[in-house]
Amino acid sequence: MTKHEALPDAALADAMMDMGARARAASRAMAQRTPDERSRALSAMANAIRAAESDILAANQKDLDIGRAKDLSPALMDRLALDAARIESIAAGLEAVAVLPDPVGRELARWTVPSGLDIARVAVPLGVIGIIYESRPNVTADAAALCVRSGNAAILRCGSESANASGAIATAMRGALADRGLPEDAVQLVPTTDREAVGHLLGGLGGQLDVVVPRGGRGLVERVQAEARVPVIGHLEGLCHAYVDKAADPAKAVEIVLNAKMRRTGICGSLEKLLVDSAAAADLLPSIAEALIAAGCELRGDEGARKLVPEMRTATEEDWQTEYLAPVLAVKIVDGIDGALAHISEWSSGHTETVITEDAAVAERFLSDVDSAIVMHNASTQFADGGEFGMGAEIGIATGRIHARGPVGADQLTIFKYVVRGTGQTRP
Amino acid sequence: MTKHEALPDAALADAMMDMGARARAASRAMAQRTPDERSRALSAMANAIRAAESDILAANQKDLDIGRAKDLSPALMDRLALDAARIESIAAGLEAVAVLPDPVGRELARWTVPSGLDIARVAVPLGVIGIIYESRPNVTADAAALCVRSGNAAILRCGSESANASGAIATAMRGALADRGLPEDAVQLVPTTDREAVGHLLGGLGGQLDVVVPRGGRGLVERVQAEARVPVIGHLEGLCHAYVDKAADPAKAVEIVLNAKMRRTGICGSLEKLLVDSAAAADLLPSIAEALIAAGCELRGDEGARKLVPEMRTATEEDWQTEYLAPVLAVKIVDGIDGALAHISEWSSGHTETVITEDAAVAERFLSDVDSAIVMHNASTQFADGGEFGMGAEIGIATGRIHARGPVGADQLTIFKYVVRGTGQTRP
Repeated sequence: MTKHEALPDAALADAMMDMGARARAASRAMAQRTPDERSRALSAMANAIRAAESDILAANQKDLDIGRAKDLSPALMDRLALDAARIESIAAGLEAVAVLPDPVGRELARWTVPSGLDIARVAVPLGVIGIIYESRPNVTADAAALCVRSGNAAILRCGSESANASGAIATAMRGALADRGLPEDAVQLVPTTDREAVGHLLGGLGGQLDVVVPRGGRGLVERVQAEARVPVIGHLEGLCHAYVDKAADPAKAVEIVLNAKMRRTGICGSLEKLLVDSAAAADLLPSIAEALIAAGCELRGDEGARKLVPEMRTATEEDWQTEYLAPVLAVKIVDGIDGALAHISEWSSGHTETVITEDAAVAERFLSDVDSAIVMHNASTQFADGGEFGMGAEIGIATGRIHARGPVGADQLTIFKYVVRGTGQTRP
Repeated sequence: MTKHEALPDAALADAMMDMGARARAASRAMAQRTPDERSRALSAMANAIRAAESDILAANQKDLDIGRAKDLSPALMDRLALDAARIESIAAGLEAVAVLPDPVGRELARWTVPSGLDIARVAVPLGVIGIIYESRPNVTADAAALCVRSGNAAILRCGSESANASGAIATAMRGALADRGLPEDAVQLVPTTDREAVGHLLGGLGGQLDVVVPRGGRGLVERVQAEARVPVIGHLEGLCHAYVDKAADPAKAVEIVLNAKMRRTGICGSLEKLLVDSAAAADLLPSIAEALIAAGCELRGDEGARKLVPEMRTATEEDWQTEYLAPVLAVKIVDGIDGALAHISEWSSGHTETVITEDAAVAERFLSDVDSAIVMHNASTQFADGGEFGMGAEIGIATGRIHARGPVGADQLTIFKYVVRGTGQTRP
């Protein structure tokens, strides 16, 4: 891997273009390997990370020293920190991807047309995938693994906070690829010393980058969406809503809302907004609020909600558009399913919404009319996760509208081509 | 439809944003209609175009008068010109789309996970689709029809040459939508008097546009790829290659190459480059060349090809990257399948390539290793067409790598969402 300190503009541009060209060549080689070869490479990558434990821990120590000098928050320091158990967990994650079904070469459909041509739609890798992410060093391994599983080449840009540990992890994985006779350039890590490197990735590296996957906060995603000249599989925020209908089972409503909000507040599938049917809010909301407050959740309500639960702070318009990622929930009384649909249509980020009701017609209307990547009935939004969907590891939850929505796993990192078999056909 | 002459910048921006907002509202309504409602709307649109024949012809006459004053080429004037038969053909095209299967709401997959959740991946419309195209007024109807079939709203930007006829066609279709109780804003035509309108579309209309489909020459596609802030389903050129292997059946090779090049030279699936295996070029190339020359095709060859067919002009590097769309073919002698793969990998635009051989191993290697939207064995590249693939009408052949490759029909104008049905599940 090219190692360099901050480079002059032209040299950085050259280095990035070179990285793109090497990724393209590697992606072609990866696409032509067999599923078994890719599986064995992933197992070898897992073992290489175990073998590199002391290197990775030493590199991580450097990151932590720098982070401490920069006065990073304790939460961020905790996300950065590695130990033997976390490194084993990274290796185990690679092994889990090694046993996932290989998505490349699947025949998605096949048919014969009147001209006699035999037409098959066959899954192929996307090509070269740029992944831009923040802080946690395990993403370096997770993202690389999904790209290798799907026959792609990955160009990874980690957050500067984890630069050293991510570099050590990438070095171990590249070594394993080379040992298995696969191109090490299928996994490349962009040097983080140049902030302009992200701009080069978003510019597409002269056509060598096929797609960019941003994985981070709103600032990153917005920069990507504003600057990208390549397709983006975007992960905007998860402004998830639950609508509690008048026909909700009260006990289910309490359990689902409590779990959706409080199980883990920092994930994109955590609940951020609660909409309660005005026709039964007096019956339903107080016990939900009581359970949330007892669990340590701050509530912010509109006027109707505050009448029923006076402990709530007043919600402002800001609250309807804010992803808290914290034990805070905004609560609004809505005029039945119509009111819920209107509110969600206006404010949702298109990630995950759930309806809690025993009325099948209301449920089906919600599932049909809410236009989000994931719509749920009588289930916690915290299930919005590739693993919980039975899809294996994921690189994120896509909130855009093209190529893929919802959990982006190895399958979603492929596209297809048409394979047409003839016997000499010419077109009349 | 808002009608306005060239507007000041701010007024144009407002008009375009308003168009986007109305398209978004229309797309939501369209997505919730039934397949039958969309089918009936398409039939009504066909009849409305028939009923508006005299209006459309009068509008077309204005376009032709302007075109004549601008001294447009006879070929372009012919593409612009409408008559009763062409209008009937436009209406018939709408009726063909009316009987296509409706892609919205299809259950693409459904499974149950250990938590008991029932998960379905369901097809939904993309949303608001911007289509930017050139000259031929029939595209106004074709593009609108595919968007209506797939539950989307279309914002159409035609070439200025067909502005009047396209306007009359759009007016007829909007009237039919309104008559059927569907939102007329599901089909909107951008005024062509403002060239900046394309810039607004490429900017995404403040998040209201979900995808842009450019349909035109390289200049348009490159502008779109450079400026677009929204996802693009791109249609680059069709720099299609045929590789004639030493194990080719000589008669098939002549017929397929002749058909692929000369059946229609102006379509994106027409053959532009011929690669011939050096191991049998002396046997195979002369008769292929003779047939092409007899049909009026100009040949440009590399040194090896010119030794065998001295009538050829010398091909320059320019020839390997030029889409002629004319009776011209560049010919190169390559070192077997490896040479063919290397040349295609360097020069292909990723549209369609074909291999002519009786050697099954060579054919499978070509089909596997050529990374184009469509790869063929013993078939003419002129089959690269949604109708020939049994997919119905198409909006173009996508040469990008995400969302869809190859023919883009109604199915490809949808995406999916996950519908999750639970019974009160919370995540442990």
